[in-house]
Amino acid sequence: MTTAFDGPPLGIDTRSAVLDQYTVDETGRAGQRPCGVAYPANVDEVAAMVRWARATRTPLISRGAGTSLEGHLLAQGNELIIDLSQANSILDISPTDFTATVQPGVTRTQLNAATAESGLQFTVDPGADASLGGMAATNASGTTTVRYGGMRANVLALQVVQADGTVVRLGRAVRKSSSGYDLKDLIIGSAGTLGIITELTVRLHPIPEWLRSLRVSFPTVTAAVDAALEMLGAALPVSRLELVDAPGMIALNTFRGADYAETPALFIDIESSSEPAATAEEQEIQRIVRAHDAIDIAAARTHTERHALWADRHNLFFALKSRHPGSRFLVTDTAVPYSQLAAAVDTATRLGDELGLAISVAGHVGDGNVHTIIPFSDLNYAVVQQFSDRLVRHALAVGGTATGEHGIGLTKKKYLREEHGAAVDLMIAIKRTLDPLGLFNPGKVLDP
Amino acid sequence: MTTAFDGPPLGIDTRSAVLDQYTVDETGRAGQRPCGVAYPANVDEVAAMVRWARATRTPLISRGAGTSLEGHLLAQGNELIIDLSQANSILDISPTDFTATVQPGVTRTQLNAATAESGLQFTVDPGADASLGGMAATNASGTTTVRYGGMRANVLALQVVQADGTVVRLGRAVRKSSSGYDLKDLIIGSAGTLGIITELTVRLHPIPEWLRSLRVSFPTVTAAVDAALEMLGAALPVSRLELVDAPGMIALNTFRGADYAETPALFIDIESSSEPAATAEEQEIQRIVRAHDAIDIAAARTHTERHALWADRHNLFFALKSRHPGSRFLVTDTAVPYSQLAAAVDTATRLGDELGLAISVAGHVGDGNVHTIIPFSDLNYAVVQQFSDRLVRHALAVGGTATGEHGIGLTKKKYLREEHGAAVDLMIAIKRTLDPLGLFNPGKVLDP
Ligand SMILES: Cc1cc2nc3c(=O)[nH]c(=O)nc-3n(C[C@H](O)[C@H](O)[C@H](O)COP(=O)(O)OP(=O)(O)OC[C@H]3O[C@@H](n4cnc5c(N)ncnc54)[C@H](O)[C@@H]3O)c2cc1C
Ligand SMILES: Cc1cc2nc3c(=O)[nH]c(=O)nc-3n(C[C@H](O)[C@H](O)[C@H](O)COP(=O)(O)OP(=O)(O)OC[C@H]3O[C@@H](n4cnc5c(N)ncnc54)[C@H](O)[C@@H]3O)c2cc1C
Repeated sequence: MTTAFDGPPLGIDTRSAVLDQYTVDETGRAGQRPCGVAYPANVDEVAAMVRWARATRTPLISRGAGTSLEGHLLAQGNELIIDLSQANSILDISPTDFTATVQPGVTRTQLNAATAESGLQFTVDPGADASLGGMAATNASGTTTVRYGGMRANVLALQVVQADGTVVRLGRAVRKSSSGYDLKDLIIGSAGTLGIITELTVRLHPIPEWLRSLRVSFPTVTAAVDAALEMLGAALPVSRLELVDAPGMIALNTFRGADYAETPALFIDIESSSEPAATAEEQEIQRIVRAHDAIDIAAARTHTERHALWADRHNLFFALKSRHPGSRFLVTDTAVPYSQLAAAVDTATRLGDELGLAISVAGHVGDGNVHTIIPFSDLNYAVVQQFSDRLVRHALAVGGTATGEHGIGLTKKKYLREEHGAAVDLMIAIKRTLDPLGLFNPGKVLDP
Repeated sequence: MTTAFDGPPLGIDTRSAVLDQYTVDETGRAGQRPCGVAYPANVDEVAAMVRWARATRTPLISRGAGTSLEGHLLAQGNELIIDLSQANSILDISPTDFTATVQPGVTRTQLNAATAESGLQFTVDPGADASLGGMAATNASGTTTVRYGGMRANVLALQVVQADGTVVRLGRAVRKSSSGYDLKDLIIGSAGTLGIITELTVRLHPIPEWLRSLRVSFPTVTAAVDAALEMLGAALPVSRLELVDAPGMIALNTFRGADYAETPALFIDIESSSEPAATAEEQEIQRIVRAHDAIDIAAARTHTERHALWADRHNLFFALKSRHPGSRFLVTDTAVPYSQLAAAVDTATRLGDELGLAISVAGHVGDGNVHTIIPFSDLNYAVVQQFSDRLVRHALAVGGTATGEHGIGLTKKKYLREEHGAAVDLMIAIKRTLDPLGLFNPGKVLDP
């Protein structure tokens, strides 16, 4: 199966059928053919590969579960893929420390299956079953970020193979430290361009016992956003706060045979410490949403009810797919200050109308993070790109970011200087310092 | 008052009486005499000073409120002090965005006074009334970190003057972003060695309406720590979780004329979303502490009661001072994994006995952060240093950190490699990249 080159410390798969699978990513975008794929199982194998790559000037693309959305994994030339899916052991779970230590290929569902018996969970939950290494590399987040933070808040320490093949440990497995420079957070979000993550120690959180969920329809996006912000201002223990716009709710009605109000809706979770707390907190949310002209309120208290309520939110993408059969989808990912949130959603809707695109807006509103889901075919791809471009520029103009959670990758490099100005030169200087030969995921995030 | 040198863009104070004040820090440690003090009021003045310093090879020490504890501010040679206390304007408070933007010399009490009318607070609360710039530079935290995080979690964006005198903006004023490398967190905790912070945008949090406080005495440190960890495991909305050991409680009894149990105690705050929630949460805490053999439980519900309860915790240092009149005090600052917390406190107590020191242990137990307060005179300073050294080495041996919140500064540089290994070489490479002439706070954190 694997051919041993003269030299490389691990077998490298070079069969064309295999390489072809690595040329296209989850979004359907295509890159070059990589020169091969290696499957290191541990830090020593990764380090040996990096030393060999350095000696032979072979550029490397680290790969986790392969679910990233911004062209992060597309080869630009003759890169070798370092596929970390075999490095997937859970090394330690410490319930007393509320931590787990894992290899980078461990996925979030794999980790949660292992921690559940201790009553603990790993909370970062991107829509896909991503690997922990890939999630750290993109600084992923998800629906629970409003309460628990994204990867930065939940990764305590990393082991990283550097460009010279040496291994370093960044951060400590403690709740806080002011010791030395924060290199752990430099690697998080660097998309495999500064080092290869070979181990992570992450925080675990208690699985809450008292959960309540609500689905609330509003007359307008502004009413929904205002209600969401009032919940945050009231310091309610909101752990999920998701928006689905009217086109999304219409698609869900068709897909599920439901008859929800075809107006913007919030999907809300609260995590309470006791039954009386849950009841009081749910009442307070009901009061807030009514004050913002809620049209329809569904509250779910049992596990089964909650599951059914959230199934809709999780089915949104499939509902849109079945509404636009044969289409591919682009998902935008800007984040803006809260005060700009309703305007950002309206801008997306107006732009969609103007450009004749059947868009639908969803978002982690608790984080100011707006996703627009746009069906497209090869015929109108240029228009879709124009849409995405104008939305990003709007977000940047109002103080937002080009990417809340998916990362810059290949496709959003063009916005880096618009967002960060002269700080990009500092990023380039750091890239050159950490990866002088430019062998780690070349062409991604920035061009040094 | 100020003498204009030939060249510098700002007046520089060189009067010896003034310079003398800058040779000694809050802990009584003395450094060299700086060559002068400048008081820039804004980013342009800071940038002009940095360009001048670069041209004249003048090393600079940035200074906020001057409250740091690890020799951060002590001149090693002929440094110029950049005193930022005049750059103290609050530039913007945005209640809808839950953010404030300030100059670096603004102090935390100044900021909180300004945000209170919006019902919002800045939560990071070191014991001293530090400046926001200094707090970011040390990655400060405090009693509320268990709930709200320290500076890293609460600073969204920075404006920084770099070593070449150019100005960059790092981070964006949004709740999440995966755009580019995380340079904001590289500057946070770098103790003025990588750049000068000239502006900060920070997160604000709603001021909670339903607070309950408890003081609970336990038979042993282990019982207190176990109860604290069980509260965290029950996901109770604990916002402060402080330990005071038996010697501390004895000192408080004398100082306040009280008769608390002279055993280890926890001081606890919970922040609830409603009255029923507060009642249920307080009951749950009472249940947990009783299960851990609580000796004495005091619950405070009104503002006045709560204030009186916390006054003791805040008076601890003064109580110890009056018990050891004429002494100076050293405060250790290790943090360890939760599972090592009780052992860390016991180690401190045993070491104190062995070395004949009248120590007392306090700590942000919710963060695994242990402070030992040690009275000393010039006579036994060597023994105190030995104590501190052995405690740090114990923390490092069990996976902890040399400093949970005070920083490395000058005095803890010797532990940097023991804690971070080869990662120190990466820190040095970054220091050389960002500050090639070594003009920013030389000799602090590391020696490039
Ligand atoms: C249906 C769907 C829903 C999604 N929802 C979300 C969401 O809610 N939030 C969100 O944040 N993202 C979301 N994503 C995007 C994606 O899941 C995340 O970006 C995820 O973090 C990628 O992880 P991965 O393991 O798939 O990494 P990959 O896609 O394999 O790699 C991502 C990047 O990380 C680098 N990398 C991977 N492993 C390592 C390593 N060990 N060391 C160094 N670099 C490494 C790669 O080089 C690449 O640059 C979604 C994707 C899909 C398909
Ligand atoms: C009684 C007492 C209690 C304390 N309790 C705590 C506590 O609970 N938690 C905690 O974390 N700390 C605590 N400290 C330590 C101290 O308050 C913190 O380290 C604080 O963050 C220092 O802020 P400052 O404004 O005084 O900074 P300074 O002491 O003036 O400076 C600290 C460091 O930051 C750098 N710096 C200052 N301003 C800037 C700037 N604008 N740009 C770049 N670098 C800059 C300086 O060069 C120096 O290295 C306590 C201190 C005292 C005296």
